[in-house]
Amino acid sequence: MNKSDNSKFPLVVIVGGGFGGLEVARKLANKPVEVLMLDKHNYHTFQPLLYQVALGSLEAESIAFSLRKNFGRQRNFRFRIAEVTRINSEKNTLDTSVGEIAYDYLVIATGSTTNFFGNKDVEHHAMPMKSIPEALNLRYLIFQNFEEAVLQKVKDEREAYLTFVLVGAGPTGVELAGAIAEFRNHVMETDYPELKKDEVKIYLVDFMPKTLATMSGPASMASADYLKKLGVELLLNTKVESYDGDVITFEGGKSIRTKNVIWSAGVMGVIPHGLSKGVVERGNRIRTDNICRVDGSENIFAIGDVAAMITPETPKGHPGVAQVAIQMGDNVGKNIIHLIKNEPTEPFKYNDKGSLATIGRNKAVADLGKIKFQGFFAWLVWIFVHLFSLLGTRNKFIVFLNWMANYLSYNGGSRLIIRRFVKHVPPHSADYVTKGE
Amino acid sequence: MNKSDNSKFPLVVIVGGGFGGLEVARKLANKPVEVLMLDKHNYHTFQPLLYQVALGSLEAESIAFSLRKNFGRQRNFRFRIAEVTRINSEKNTLDTSVGEIAYDYLVIATGSTTNFFGNKDVEHHAMPMKSIPEALNLRYLIFQNFEEAVLQKVKDEREAYLTFVLVGAGPTGVELAGAIAEFRNHVMETDYPELKKDEVKIYLVDFMPKTLATMSGPASMASADYLKKLGVELLLNTKVESYDGDVITFEGGKSIRTKNVIWSAGVMGVIPHGLSKGVVERGNRIRTDNICRVDGSENIFAIGDVAAMITPETPKGHPGVAQVAIQMGDNVGKNIIHLIKNEPTEPFKYNDKGSLATIGRNKAVADLGKIKFQGFFAWLVWIFVHLFSLLGTRNKFIVFLNWMANYLSYNGGSRLIIRRFVKHVPPHSADYVTKGE
Repeated sequence: MNKSDNSKFPLVVIVGGGFGGLEVARKLANKPVEVLMLDKHNYHTFQPLLYQVALGSLEAESIAFSLRKNFGRQRNFRFRIAEVTRINSEKNTLDTSVGEIAYDYLVIATGSTTNFFGNKDVEHHAMPMKSIPEALNLRYLIFQNFEEAVLQKVKDEREAYLTFVLVGAGPTGVELAGAIAEFRNHVMETDYPELKKDEVKIYLVDFMPKTLATMSGPASMASADYLKKLGVELLLNTKVESYDGDVITFEGGKSIRTKNVIWSAGVMGVIPHGLSKGVVERGNRIRTDNICRVDGSENIFAIGDVAAMITPETPKGHPGVAQVAIQMGDNVGKNIIHLIKNEPTEPFKYNDKGSLATIGRNKAVADLGKIKFQGFFAWLVWIFVHLFSLLGTRNKFIVFLNWMANYLSYNGGSRLIIRRFVKHVPPHSADYVTKGE
Repeated sequence: MNKSDNSKFPLVVIVGGGFGGLEVARKLANKPVEVLMLDKHNYHTFQPLLYQVALGSLEAESIAFSLRKNFGRQRNFRFRIAEVTRINSEKNTLDTSVGEIAYDYLVIATGSTTNFFGNKDVEHHAMPMKSIPEALNLRYLIFQNFEEAVLQKVKDEREAYLTFVLVGAGPTGVELAGAIAEFRNHVMETDYPELKKDEVKIYLVDFMPKTLATMSGPASMASADYLKKLGVELLLNTKVESYDGDVITFEGGKSIRTKNVIWSAGVMGVIPHGLSKGVVERGNRIRTDNICRVDGSENIFAIGDVAAMITPETPKGHPGVAQVAIQMGDNVGKNIIHLIKNEPTEPFKYNDKGSLATIGRNKAVADLGKIKFQGFFAWLVWIFVHLFSLLGTRNKFIVFLNWMANYLSYNGGSRLIIRRFVKHVPPHSADYVTKGE
């Protein structure tokens, strides 16, 4: 689509249909602009629940929502499945997998991908979990490894298949560890009568001295406590040195035999080619001014995980969480209209609504401003917030139903292996390719 | 697993977790046997609803059910993901992808796959829909082709992407045609504002002179009528000659440009290697006696789509429908116990409960013995029967919820393209391999 198709209004191109991109598009409904969203998938992913897709307790479709369907009634909205290969900022165009696209305003909302910090061994063998294809791939790995374990007649040969090492004790690692532990504790022996609970080991590793290090002290302590009660072994102050697919080795020499290493120890922004190297900050994020505008540009914005708004108040930018992306999206949506109308822009101001993380079947930790609490009530808040944030009434119903089934029976999940695990899901493609297999 | 693991009781090996295999295993619960089920997937597929997975109105997980979970409480049941590569009937063992397995009794419940009747062109380019991976692959093809159509600026170039040719006017073809028509009529222009309804063409092709030829006259006539009202063009008395991926050609010379040919014109049994060629009947089915025992064998049974019970009353065997498989499974389960106890066996007797097929959002045709009816009430019966037959309370709830959403809004589906379409899903593997791409 070129601007000329709808020449009446300026064209705003949004790259990425995550939390930030969605919010920009929404804010531009019924405004004097045309909106074109590009995404490599035709759906929005509710990333906070990916770990439940990996464990088979939710279907991928329950936490994803068709972007076309979501904006079907928004008359100035168009969508293309496309990957942006280059930004040509000097002529205001994008090179994409579906041809060249001209823009008047560009919003880069491409999010982040897993950061292996240059460790190629780990990158090759460990499993990331930042997208639906990756979460499904992880599911297939986990349940294929249970199947493999059943086939091993000697207990010692089962060990590596039944050992789970989660690297990174942020919300993803903590939630995944809790979910695997609940599966082991309550479901595994029914599904796999050949295996015994105590054969399954779950390790949660972080180089920091505590779990949920970005949350409050009480949240960290409670999460560690809940995890230990579920039987998760914490390896804190521990740095990964290498992983060859069979053995993970830590600095200092300790090592663990495992076929299941899941890496959620860091993220980095996904920046399309073509921007000046000078605007790239630590963590591969794009430096912006206080209205999310890319440094040195008039009409290019960056929001969410891929943005680093460096100001005196935020010398390192904002945390990579959904709320930042949503609020930046809201800000950019408004400011684009201000710019078009030659009105003064509104500087971005982050309103931190707090953090939540859940551990296992019915516990969570919550830091809501000065109010910090943990346990069952935090879990109810977690449920409410996540259901409320999910796109689509049908998804809310289905997820709620699944959670209730799971809460009542421990065993709500489907755990289907629809296709075989592949070593790598290419991060920038909707396709699965078997690489090195 | 070898017999020696559980030497106390005879081992019954069931190959295939479809309707028939499930029923055998159920019948053997709490009986003096060990049961080992092998399937290439770890789930049972409710095939009658595959077409709704293909259209994205149901998730794959809603119509599939984990075999391990289903039999988790049956103490004499074991399961392996495995493909049988050879039956060694002389020594009562199977060669499988997970090693050699000895059996005392063997039940072949491997079902059927798509029959292209030797037409290699069609086999290479047309889409089958007999399994969950195939239904998902078809979904990705359909929605990728809508995306492709959007990218074509000239109307003429959109034609092939927006033309659907369904070959085979049995229940699958009829139901799929109805579902695609409903999508076109009620959803497409919202999802794809660039496209117009009348650009989408849907053809249902059969070499027979009527739709649903195996059902009653009134059912055939009503289904043809409903389809025409939905805008499906019927090409009856029409035989496919070739399809090259762009143009399908019929005997007599007529041809249609299309990227979407879906083939449900026939099935053939999936027989593991090793059985004598002498027992193979038309349609690649295994000839059995009246207790489903493979001709010439003492302890090998075949049931469901892969079986042809040739008796004076059934000179061509039974129809390839779920009810036959279920009832044969029931019969074999009972007779294995009779044989073990040296009791007389019970001959199989098919109790035809009738046929149903649905067309579009709220119409169906029903032949229930002498009672034949069509329309909305038949659709209610169809809903009830299918919900009742689905495995798992959670699945029943979720499917019901989806159907209600769809009935009320026309637009309940999710239509996600989780991975790219691949030319072929190998019929005998859980894996996707890109072939010739």
